[in-house]
Amino acid sequence: MVSILNSQIIFVTFAKHNRYIMLTLDDSREVVNKAISNLKFKSQPKELYNPIRYILSMGGKRLRPCMVIMACNLFRDDVEEAIRPAVGIEIFHNFTLLHDDIMDNSILRRNKPTVHTKWDRNIAILSGDVMSILSSSYIISCRKEIVLDLLRVFNQTALEVCEGQQFDMNFETQFQVDEREYLKMIECKTAVLFAASLKIGSIIGGASGSDADNMYLFGKNLGMAFQLQDDLLDVYGDPEVFGKRIGEDIEANKKTYLLVKTLELAREKRRNEIIRLLNDGKIPRKEKIHAMVQIYDAINIRKITQEKVDFYFKEAGESLERVRVNDSRKEELKKMADKLNRRER
Amino acid sequence: MVSILNSQIIFVTFAKHNRYIMLTLDDSREVVNKAISNLKFKSQPKELYNPIRYILSMGGKRLRPCMVIMACNLFRDDVEEAIRPAVGIEIFHNFTLLHDDIMDNSILRRNKPTVHTKWDRNIAILSGDVMSILSSSYIISCRKEIVLDLLRVFNQTALEVCEGQQFDMNFETQFQVDEREYLKMIECKTAVLFAASLKIGSIIGGASGSDADNMYLFGKNLGMAFQLQDDLLDVYGDPEVFGKRIGEDIEANKKTYLLVKTLELAREKRRNEIIRLLNDGKIPRKEKIHAMVQIYDAINIRKITQEKVDFYFKEAGESLERVRVNDSRKEELKKMADKLNRRER
Repeated sequence: MVSILNSQIIFVTFAKHNRYIMLTLDDSREVVNKAISNLKFKSQPKELYNPIRYILSMGGKRLRPCMVIMACNLFRDDVEEAIRPAVGIEIFHNFTLLHDDIMDNSILRRNKPTVHTKWDRNIAILSGDVMSILSSSYIISCRKEIVLDLLRVFNQTALEVCEGQQFDMNFETQFQVDEREYLKMIECKTAVLFAASLKIGSIIGGASGSDADNMYLFGKNLGMAFQLQDDLLDVYGDPEVFGKRIGEDIEANKKTYLLVKTLELAREKRRNEIIRLLNDGKIPRKEKIHAMVQIYDAINIRKITQEKVDFYFKEAGESLERVRVNDSRKEELKKMADKLNRRER
Repeated sequence: MVSILNSQIIFVTFAKHNRYIMLTLDDSREVVNKAISNLKFKSQPKELYNPIRYILSMGGKRLRPCMVIMACNLFRDDVEEAIRPAVGIEIFHNFTLLHDDIMDNSILRRNKPTVHTKWDRNIAILSGDVMSILSSSYIISCRKEIVLDLLRVFNQTALEVCEGQQFDMNFETQFQVDEREYLKMIECKTAVLFAASLKIGSIIGGASGSDADNMYLFGKNLGMAFQLQDDLLDVYGDPEVFGKRIGEDIEANKKTYLLVKTLELAREKRRNEIIRLLNDGKIPRKEKIHAMVQIYDAINIRKITQEKVDFYFKEAGESLERVRVNDSRKEELKKMADKLNRRER
């Protein structure tokens, strides 16, 4: 439970009959958003710092920093020390979005112009570089004894995220991508940062090594499920709720789990039809999406993918189970996982 | 004195009649080059790690990592612990070169194709990002107690280097740049990394706070002098020795100290002539360089700049003087400064 008084954040965790009232996901998001809106950057050079203010003010789900806060809260009541590292994780995540948008030539992010569109490519490269360095500075804003532990997790993860982006870019020109390669890519690009966020929060909270490792696995499995859901929502999401146009991945020939797995399962005739849809640039958008969805339905890819999503959520739950903390302290993290499980956007 | 036996590096500092035999600049470079050539990177994704191997194998003066080693050696005989942080500094420096080359559209670096030319822009962005993260990992490869001290110096410096690059890019479109702004830019872009290298080496060596700060100042002043020399060499260097074409800065309208100061000192007629040379894109290269050098000579800019260089070398020497270490231990650092003072490339 969070109350904000005179811009002082006060945390209170009540213990009553051995039931704890923990920070919810919404509480954590409030803490994170408050901390981000209070960030002070230098005024000069404005070309560097204005884009950073801009991308951080775009919002988003703030899932990763909330995970830092909530994981810390799992092990102790006072989460103050986790706030700056949480902000560091969010700055890092936004740095990767900023540079990915340059590499992918994306015009919009969250319905607003991307940094390289609003300013220019050079400013986007350099303000991204600054964010990468800043994130490391925020991560280490904690007690001295755990700095090295946090940085080892963070640096290792940061490298893997870059590797994931490279694998993803390679897929664009790589004809055949198998399921194993695809899962490795999303593990690097998405899952390890969920994992690291939860592990970093746990270390700050004072978790034992094995608890921190189980929290890492909890996050990794959540991240795998989250990314597979993303692929599903592109095709089967509710356009009113999803927030993006349906079928964008199909239109862009993106190698999603649905496509990779369908290519693996399809017999020759359907395979050839898919290859025609991928290669013939003249097929109108709507027609291409319709034809691909028909194949997906015939292969039953929605069910297959959903089973994979369920598998990872189950694994995540089991990892959280193994953490040696009073069950009632885990409830908000379970609710968060459930919320992700039911997500439609 | 360094001997390399079966790829084991053994350091021996002799003390005889209170005279120490310290690592020379060449010794240190040998240590650094050996460590860089022994670096092991992952094999996959090769698109990320091959460019890193490539840019690190290009060579260069290795001044910054040598400064880490020599500064450590100033305070203690065994420099083993400084090697990985020194490599971290060199990786960071090469990261900035890699991204700067994209931003500046440079085709060649050390007479070889730049990474974005040899591979492509996206690979250059992403392998630069990886280098930035790697550099931080190498910096913290030292005893636990000093990790936070090193990272504070390093992160602060890394931010300033990015700010310097942004100021430099701003100068391209900024009509008027004054001497103060110019000096601030080179302080950020070049001098602080010299300073941080010497401070980081000193901290590893066990220096006191004030000694480490004086080493920082020693490096900062060396860096200022070094960058001003760069501007001088572009115009007055010996083309046989310099290694780059003479007059490239003039050709590119680069706002060097020579140009900034000349614009400040010149009366209206000469100012107008300079502005014509800067704006008229049709003037042949040779003619433009010749005309600009004539103005420089008339203003006596070589002497004015050289006096500024001398000033910073003098300041550097005084900072080193203040470090509370037996004078004879300082000799190799003094020789290094002298060598930079006399540099022709």
